Amino acid sequence: MTVIAQYLVHDQNGEFEKKAEKIAIGLTVGSWTDLPELEKAQLLAHKGEVVEVREIEESADGVRRGLISISFPAANYSFDLPAILTTTFGKLSLDGSIKLIDLHFSNEIQRHFKGPRFGIQGVRELTGAYDRPLVMSIFKAAIGRSLDSLHEQMLHQALGGVDLVKDDEILFENELTPLEQRVPVGLAAIAEAAEETGNRPLYAVNLTGKTFELKERAKTAIELGAPALLFNVFTYGLDVLQGLREDPEIDVPILAHPAFSGAITSSSRYGVSNPLLLGKLLRMAGADLVLFPSPYGSVAMPKQETLQIAQALRTAEEPYAQAFPVPSAGIHPGMTAQLIEDFGIDTVINAGGGIHGHPEGASAGGAAFREAIDGVLSGQTLEEKAESSLNLRKALDTWGLIKV
Amino acid sequence: MTVIAQYLVHDQNGEFEKKAEKIAIGLTVGSWTDLPELEKAQLLAHKGEVVEVREIEESADGVRRGLISISFPAANYSFDLPAILTTTFGKLSLDGSIKLIDLHFSNEIQRHFKGPRFGIQGVRELTGAYDRPLVMSIFKAAIGRSLDSLHEQMLHQALGGVDLVKDDEILFENELTPLEQRVPVGLAAIAEAAEETGNRPLYAVNLTGKTFELKERAKTAIELGAPALLFNVFTYGLDVLQGLREDPEIDVPILAHPAFSGAITSSSRYGVSNPLLLGKLLRMAGADLVLFPSPYGSVAMPKQETLQIAQALRTAEEPYAQAFPVPSAGIHPGMTAQLIEDFGIDTVINAGGGIHGHPEGASAGGAAFREAIDGVLSGQTLEEKAESSLNLRKALDTWGLIKV
Ligand SMILES: [Mg+2]
Ligand SMILES: [Mg+2]
Repeated sequence: MTVIAQYLVHDQNGEFEKKAEKIAIGLTVGSWTDLPELEKAQLLAHKGEVVEVREIEESADGVRRGLISISFPAANYSFDLPAILTTTFGKLSLDGSIKLIDLHFSNEIQRHFKGPRFGIQGVRELTGAYDRPLVMSIFKAAIGRSLDSLHEQMLHQALGGVDLVKDDEILFENELTPLEQRVPVGLAAIAEAAEETGNRPLYAVNLTGKTFELKERAKTAIELGAPALLFNVFTYGLDVLQGLREDPEIDVPILAHPAFSGAITSSSRYGVSNPLLLGKLLRMAGADLVLFPSPYGSVAMPKQETLQIAQALRTAEEPYAQAFPVPSAGIHPGMTAQLIEDFGIDTVINAGGGIHGHPEGASAGGAAFREAIDGVLSGQTLEEKAESSLNLRKALDTWGLIKV
Repeated sequence: MTVIAQYLVHDQNGEFEKKAEKIAIGLTVGSWTDLPELEKAQLLAHKGEVVEVREIEESADGVRRGLISISFPAANYSFDLPAILTTTFGKLSLDGSIKLIDLHFSNEIQRHFKGPRFGIQGVRELTGAYDRPLVMSIFKAAIGRSLDSLHEQMLHQALGGVDLVKDDEILFENELTPLEQRVPVGLAAIAEAAEETGNRPLYAVNLTGKTFELKERAKTAIELGAPALLFNVFTYGLDVLQGLREDPEIDVPILAHPAFSGAITSSSRYGVSNPLLLGKLLRMAGADLVLFPSPYGSVAMPKQETLQIAQALRTAEEPYAQAFPVPSAGIHPGMTAQLIEDFGIDTVINAGGGIHGHPEGASAGGAAFREAIDGVLSGQTLEEKAESSLNLRKALDTWGLIKV
């Protein structure tokens, strides 16, 4: 039983084998070669092993790079993410140009993690939306806005036929829209829209406050009717997310927001890779939906990384329910064909400006996305679909379209 | 009431003013210029403000750099670190070459944080050590080792006159030295040594496991007699540390370990600065002692940064008890004069190899540090002191000495 950690190392001297041995011993038994044979026998089950060392192409600025994989025996840590991360990337994170690329968990260790409670399948059941991407809307403006404004925005987003509406992740407990009023007001707007359209988006309410009060707040939100929770996992901790997911009374889908993750993932030399942090680990910890920067916005994540995140969230090679990838930023209805080509159908199309900025308002914006999806899935181009969809036509006129 | 965030931005086009405006508006009210006057009046209390924009010298690789300070109104967030970090460095952390350098909290916000329960003064009272640096020892080998081995190592460290002994931060709940046995065995060794020397080091026990079980485990450790706790705060969360500190039943000093922090602080372009993350924020969250990489080891933190961490932990400009800086790595008795010159007296001298590697064993290693401290504080050079201290003489012969 092991965790195998893969690291990317920058070293102009290319001493990757030496580094690998140092990690394997230093982060486990501490010393090896000079130990008496009897001690070696006792410690063998605890000794880290070098699994692979492979030099790869130089960095863009001409520094030699290597990939190193080290196996950490299960006897050395408890099966929780804090222990595993402290072991595999604790003091090592301070040890120069080294980035944690992947963690591979053996099956028995994986069984100690539950993964998403709902996942793609469960969220589809809750939204009643099958065989197409879901659409999510973000409030246009939240901070400093009143309950009336929230009601109004929610009504129009719901009328547009979106499947989810999320709080702004920077909306915390506040005097104007406290949780205890914001949830019922939002749900009332959704009920009002449902009378017209039959559509009831899931309102993902921002779960905030002190860590040791989160479970109570989550249950309060759920009692008020919140059908989903938004969570800024990276300012709390992966294991905090896992603790929420594992609480039997917190039985709604959890949307993980990537806020603060850039502090950990942005560097090419340090930190943790996006597919591991936002993909594999969030899925293991129990996120049902994962927001991450799209490859299309003004500060785009490289497309390869976004595809790797989506892959990690959905691959059948992991024994967990799949989690929904939610590429975010720079998304308008004209992107729909590109999104479906890149991320497939099991994804959430997430827009703020691309819905609220529609010339006819948020309901038209949401409807434009729904029509665009219908068009693409029935084999039409967006231009073709727009001939019979005024909402989509106006969206394309406003933002253009990306042909695939 | 505000939090003022200072950022370091890399931009070859030098568009720092523009970036500052974007941050001030985008991370608060969302939009401003085109809003109707009535809305502007309502939102004014929520609007971020640009406090300062200042271009500084280029980076080493020739990219223009600027320092940007933005003021975030208190109405926008609850007074907890997850909310403040999500607001000031949430989505912004994903927004290109931007690093969070400092957060300045107005007085009223500071009052919502307690800081260290014990701090430097409280830890001195518990150790009975005044007017000199403390000495801390780390177990030489922990993983895969038995209770007997732990007892033996503890005994010898305690006999050497150290003030604290810490668990290895990668020692988790395990079959050989489970918490419920490790604590009494360690304390028994300390009691045995105390019969000879009268000295009783504080044993800092590693607090591990799942977040929502930590309080229980901490209380169990304390009931077993643990006089201090070691905590890998960065694989859990700053607010988790704060929650532990604020629990009235967790009334022992907490040592914060920097494990995993390198993933957040190492890059010059991304992430969070060391003085903020390891200094100011750990003190606010309640760490009594903070370990960080010394400027002397093989993978040294730049000295300026280490001094800034120590400054942030002890400055009287913050309304909290001072926290002990604990520079770690590459430390042996011959460094003592350098350590005191750099970090002063209100610091902990922390060594593993520099104690266990002494030719006469760990007790001699600890004693060598104590003698070195006595020598320096009485105005001698280490060479002079070593004339009357065999332990120190042998340490200097083994590792050399750094003259100041
Ligand atoms: Mg947002
Ligand atoms: Mg250590």
